[in-house]
Amino acid sequence: MQKLIKDLIQKNNTKILLIVLDGLGGLPVKGKTELEVAQIPNLDALATQSACGLHIPIAMGITPGSGPGHLSLFGYDPIEWQIGRGVLEALGLGIELKKTDIALRANYATVEGGIVKDRRAGRIPTEENKEITERLQEKIRKIDDVEVIFAPGMEHRLAIVLRFPEPLPKGSASIKDTDPQKEGKPPISVTPGMPQAKGIAKIVEKLISLISETIKNERKANFILLRGFSQVPDIPHFEEVYGLKPLAIATYPMYRGLAKLIGIDAPAITGDIEEEIDFLKKNYNGYDFFFLHVKKIDSYGEDGNFEGKASKIEEFDKALPEILGLNPDVLIITGDHSTPSVLKSHSWHPVPLLLRSPYVLGNICKAFTERECIKGELGIFPTVNLMPLALANAGRLKKFGA
Amino acid sequence: MQKLIKDLIQKNNTKILLIVLDGLGGLPVKGKTELEVAQIPNLDALATQSACGLHIPIAMGITPGSGPGHLSLFGYDPIEWQIGRGVLEALGLGIELKKTDIALRANYATVEGGIVKDRRAGRIPTEENKEITERLQEKIRKIDDVEVIFAPGMEHRLAIVLRFPEPLPKGSASIKDTDPQKEGKPPISVTPGMPQAKGIAKIVEKLISLISETIKNERKANFILLRGFSQVPDIPHFEEVYGLKPLAIATYPMYRGLAKLIGIDAPAITGDIEEEIDFLKKNYNGYDFFFLHVKKIDSYGEDGNFEGKASKIEEFDKALPEILGLNPDVLIITGDHSTPSVLKSHSWHPVPLLLRSPYVLGNICKAFTERECIKGELGIFPTVNLMPLALANAGRLKKFGA
Repeated sequence: MQKLIKDLIQKNNTKILLIVLDGLGGLPVKGKTELEVAQIPNLDALATQSACGLHIPIAMGITPGSGPGHLSLFGYDPIEWQIGRGVLEALGLGIELKKTDIALRANYATVEGGIVKDRRAGRIPTEENKEITERLQEKIRKIDDVEVIFAPGMEHRLAIVLRFPEPLPKGSASIKDTDPQKEGKPPISVTPGMPQAKGIAKIVEKLISLISETIKNERKANFILLRGFSQVPDIPHFEEVYGLKPLAIATYPMYRGLAKLIGIDAPAITGDIEEEIDFLKKNYNGYDFFFLHVKKIDSYGEDGNFEGKASKIEEFDKALPEILGLNPDVLIITGDHSTPSVLKSHSWHPVPLLLRSPYVLGNICKAFTERECIKGELGIFPTVNLMPLALANAGRLKKFGA
Repeated sequence: MQKLIKDLIQKNNTKILLIVLDGLGGLPVKGKTELEVAQIPNLDALATQSACGLHIPIAMGITPGSGPGHLSLFGYDPIEWQIGRGVLEALGLGIELKKTDIALRANYATVEGGIVKDRRAGRIPTEENKEITERLQEKIRKIDDVEVIFAPGMEHRLAIVLRFPEPLPKGSASIKDTDPQKEGKPPISVTPGMPQAKGIAKIVEKLISLISETIKNERKANFILLRGFSQVPDIPHFEEVYGLKPLAIATYPMYRGLAKLIGIDAPAITGDIEEEIDFLKKNYNGYDFFFLHVKKIDSYGEDGNFEGKASKIEEFDKALPEILGLNPDVLIITGDHSTPSVLKSHSWHPVPLLLRSPYVLGNICKAFTERECIKGELGIFPTVNLMPLALANAGRLKKFGA
């Protein structure tokens, strides 16, 4: 499909703004969802003028992680383009990945007499993790010609990136997890899953021995277990596929990292929705496509905080007029997946969406809620179809065939 | 899918009538669409008794040309079966294509000192084009054993068909356009894109030299530029796939030509909707499936004439009782794509559809409009699914599996 789209692209001066309210969709508590309880007059008015519907990020019944949820929104088939765990972890911890990288997730662990006693090293404090990881980084900068980058995470977690001097053949990261997944067993030895991973496995063996040499006297975090070895996918870039100059506006590193994977500019920014809108305004002339990510709504959903999630949606609603002032040619507001507070997690439920452009029917949905969006002119559709629809509404797609 | 359908076909005496109101769907002006403004009591009543919905010809966001729009309606995947530009042009100009043909579009151009001065030969009057093209046809009837057929179009445009003595291997038409697309450059020399096009390229070189020899003294149209070389697709015939004896009723050559490509009978007729209905009545006993094409609604949409488009829909509504008198077992009324007057062009918007048979729920939609069809029992569905649905409603599909 992206191939077809690429052939139909025509450029113009329109601007497309995609606002992702992370984890937007919900489920009822006492009969009403978070969106139905929230006082969101601006979103409701916008929904009335817009084409509304719901989208399914992966497939019916499938709960998306943040990676595939966003890839889908950007029009990339999330089943074709699976981003490895190690890559996502590294992106989330703010490492800028290159095409020559192999990324992995790591746990500090407690090992005694060659047996894993605690896979999480007693969940050491994050501060202790930081201190140990810094020490590792100082000591281990290179193995042969491979650069090694460490990034501490929460508690016992960290990410490690092996930066090779040149791109590796596909399958080079097919190395089995060394984490035995159970206490009372020895760590699994480094095992390449394909012939092209053999050389890399040697590097990983050296890495493990250098690390354990450095931390062997720690009280708890005296060993390391590795998981999720993965290569950066050789994925077509957003601008190349869509002919749009794209900017990501996101305060969390993982979303910026994901955007960068597909060639979307994503400068580091901090702050809340106000800072994001300021950044959007400052950069409005330099780009064609804007991905603005709002995280907090999802976080409250994950905490099971129904009122908190509703109030974060209200907070966005208050900021909306400021965004509408920019008057983008195509404005889309949706989520990357649903996060119903009652589930305290991402879910498989279709995600409400509104799309405003001069070329919609409108006047169908009375509010921006799950139940109103079901009535909408876009129906329930696969998320990957959103980008073609956005491009069409922006006048950026030629006719197919004569 | 067509393979599955073919295996399930069972014949009976039912009749299916598919009426295509070309460019039917629209967008609101002052809040209402063309269909919402039009006074169409007969269509509204029919919608109430029918299964309604909207269909997407190619994919979300993709604007279909007339070729792919109709192929989809006939149940052929329009991405799998791409009809070349040359073939469509030749069909549109009334040439009946055979399986041994290569068709192309041509422009008369002005060339001076080997450089294209005007790619459109000053848009010479259509009459002048006719006169020059007739002269070419008289002079050039055969090149080696290849028959050459010319058909003048509007202004500087024409179609040329090379009729070979026997079918050519796939890829034989992969010859690059000779039109440099810009003035101030020389015409591009004839370049085969695949080895199997080499022999054909030689014929095309001879064709160009014969043409330029004939018209070199014209004031403006002294050269010819060629584009869109294409072969007639080896596409399965309608009757073979569906077991229906099909008849096309269309006054425009392109729609008849498209129908003929898939083996639908399509005698030349002229006139308006009344003549088309007369023709339908006269031939009603001889066929199982009728494709009745109504062009004017699209033409007004393309002109941006909102009221004109609405009044043409009203005109059809007045003729509808006459058609209902035939009482076809399955009656479908829809379009091949939307043509909102505000866009003055085909568009990507889903197309309203009603299907009347004894086996629908009905009593859901109050009128035949875009917004009412959204509520309908058929939802928003891919156009290629329409033929199986029509066959099912006609009792012409067996159960799948036991």
